[in-house]
Amino acid sequence: MNLPQMETLLLESKGPVLQVTFNRPQARNAMSLLMVQELTELFQTIADSDQYRAVVLRGAGGHFCAGADIKDMATARANLGRSAEDPIFAMNRAFGRLITQVNQSPQTVIVVLEGAVLGGGFGLACVSDVAIAASDAKFGLPETGLGIIPAQIAPFVVTRIGLTQARRLALLGARFDGTEAYRLGLVHYVCDTADTLENQLREVLDQVKRCAPHANRVTKQLMLRVGQPDLEALLDDAAREFSKAVQSPEGQEGTMAFIQKRLPSWASDS
Amino acid sequence: MNLPQMETLLLESKGPVLQVTFNRPQARNAMSLLMVQELTELFQTIADSDQYRAVVLRGAGGHFCAGADIKDMATARANLGRSAEDPIFAMNRAFGRLITQVNQSPQTVIVVLEGAVLGGGFGLACVSDVAIAASDAKFGLPETGLGIIPAQIAPFVVTRIGLTQARRLALLGARFDGTEAYRLGLVHYVCDTADTLENQLREVLDQVKRCAPHANRVTKQLMLRVGQPDLEALLDDAAREFSKAVQSPEGQEGTMAFIQKRLPSWASDS
Amino acid sequence: MNLPQMETLLLESKGPVLQVTFNRPQARNAMSLLMVQELTELFQTIADSDQYRAVVLRGAGGHFCAGADIKDMATARANLGRSAEDPIFAMNRAFGRLITQVNQSPQTVIVVLEGAVLGGGFGLACVSDVAIAASDAKFGLPETGLGIIPAQIAPFVVTRIGLTQARRLALLGARFDGTEAYRLGLVHYVCDTADTLENQLREVLDQVKRCAPHANRVTKQLMLRVGQPDLEALLDDAAREFSKAVQSPEGQEGTMAFIQKRLPSWASDS
Repeated sequence: MNLPQMETLLLESKGPVLQVTFNRPQARNAMSLLMVQELTELFQTIADSDQYRAVVLRGAGGHFCAGADIKDMATARANLGRSAEDPIFAMNRAFGRLITQVNQSPQTVIVVLEGAVLGGGFGLACVSDVAIAASDAKFGLPETGLGIIPAQIAPFVVTRIGLTQARRLALLGARFDGTEAYRLGLVHYVCDTADTLENQLREVLDQVKRCAPHANRVTKQLMLRVGQPDLEALLDDAAREFSKAVQSPEGQEGTMAFIQKRLPSWASDS
Repeated sequence: MNLPQMETLLLESKGPVLQVTFNRPQARNAMSLLMVQELTELFQTIADSDQYRAVVLRGAGGHFCAGADIKDMATARANLGRSAEDPIFAMNRAFGRLITQVNQSPQTVIVVLEGAVLGGGFGLACVSDVAIAASDAKFGLPETGLGIIPAQIAPFVVTRIGLTQARRLALLGARFDGTEAYRLGLVHYVCDTADTLENQLREVLDQVKRCAPHANRVTKQLMLRVGQPDLEALLDDAAREFSKAVQSPEGQEGTMAFIQKRLPSWASDS
Repeated sequence: MNLPQMETLLLESKGPVLQVTFNRPQARNAMSLLMVQELTELFQTIADSDQYRAVVLRGAGGHFCAGADIKDMATARANLGRSAEDPIFAMNRAFGRLITQVNQSPQTVIVVLEGAVLGGGFGLACVSDVAIAASDAKFGLPETGLGIIPAQIAPFVVTRIGLTQARRLALLGARFDGTEAYRLGLVHYVCDTADTLENQLREVLDQVKRCAPHANRVTKQLMLRVGQPDLEALLDDAAREFSKAVQSPEGQEGTMAFIQKRLPSWASDS
């Protein structure tokens, strides 16, 4: 796959891992309309490919993402009434479609959270499979303090940390650091130094590589379906997928590797 | 708004904050039928008003609430069969309607948990937006030990702390203190002394005041809808509310205040 | 009730407590087809009886359960295509029916987790009412590393510890100990020595015995229904069950015992 050229994103392929760096450091990687579009396009492109098993999202310049872009918001305001569609609604909804898409990405999505993790950046963190935070990262839901609302991200925040903490954080416009994010279960790892953070990322990627690519995709899909009304139907589907997995080349290689006490083929992808 | 006179509740207005003190200290503020009625009436009265942005619930005499009132329960038992309606069912269900209503209150609801937080008092704690506990508060679900069940509160306990902890606590009739309540995620803050508890309450109220009143109402409504089947419809509604908020006086004032590096108008309500 | 003779399980009655020991230590109590069948039969047998109020599940030989049995899996593979039904699907689904059944068991289910708690054993731990782990127990979801998927257990893992941790553990094929299981909220107690573990189990059983048998059954059923769409219907049913409990012999004995400051009759079952 040829990776597209992108204006707001730096892309780097490392074997089965795609590293995506938000590249608007002058705006603390605020989520501009263009960045939303480019991320949407990127995740669509890689969704249908088997090339990438993991995606790492992080920000250039020491910040993950400071939320929505103020200039784009001002433009949307200025364009109100010029067309039949509400441009503010459209901008907000486009971001909601992006995080829905990232949540359901067939790849394992890992976020590295440094500096500002605010508003939309907070929402993006909430749809990752694995979240690694710097202990001094700055998390927050500043919306209500600005007279607006955490609209598209509300459901993902609730799903991430539960209603009990989500309602408090949103209604107090709370700010907190990476250590507290770990305590709240928002992130899985918290690191005190740049070195330990890079080591943790490396370890996580090594663990992903030891997992079978297709098995991980199917497992993620099953887990995202939990909570839907019909548990029995989900368990039936899960058993069908289990049988397919056992009979697949992956399942056979995995069993053989286990018996032969060696790594399976997919674990040596570099 | 003129606050009604109430027999079981002390009411005090402090600008946008309504402080409600359960005032049956002789019964550790057990939830009598009258207290349920008065709380129901109070929350209905303030729901349609813009006057109050926060409600603080606490108990007089060092206890939050020790559960259902034994005398009222005895009366309900004695009245069994005297009318078509089951008075025990009616009493229990009335309390369930109250906590459903408090859960959905447009105000930000803060509970201060001292002394006994048992049964119905435990259930009430579970529907707060912010919970502050004394470290030596006494939490418990004593129902099953008395041969009865935590009926109306069961769903709210499960939503509050998850099924994993809820099933254990209920089936063991567990008792625990404020420190453990904090570890379980039932409360957001735990305080060792009366002073730190009052400071924490003040800080929480300051944070609520910095958030825009209408934005907080809408945000709370959105969060309470999470988990309902249709996520896409929720995200559409959220984007519509977002656009309305941006265009509202609040959204405009919030943006101006941010640019001018000053507090927004609503933050100076006292 | 006469307890059935079982090949893979040791059964011991201690008053209202049934202790079930998985007895395939040579295979670290891997969940063979026969063991699934015998557990299914056992839980069906005791479900309709009032004899047992608690079931303790643990493993012989220092391990809880190392997951699915490799020999049975190989047999299922070999039988593929010999009949209309897929034997791998059937084996997987039978295990899913078992953990669904254990989850809904009217008894309070307590698991003692030592040594290997892997795959299906992990899933079984996730449907317990009370989980006690040795600090050096070895938890893990090894499936994706073997090219297969945690199929039947995925929903129960998500329900147990939340989607946020479940997706990480599954997609990293994570391994962790009892102390981390406690931090994740997967287990309720973690013990450093065999003595403290046995003491904790005794304390838990004492607590269960102080709770009224029927009240516990009804409470568990109510809690398992939380999350279903119609909250109001659930609260109505809960109030009906509450009234029944108050009027039942249990409710009357519980109230009398409370007034007379003595233990209720059910607490002295030994």
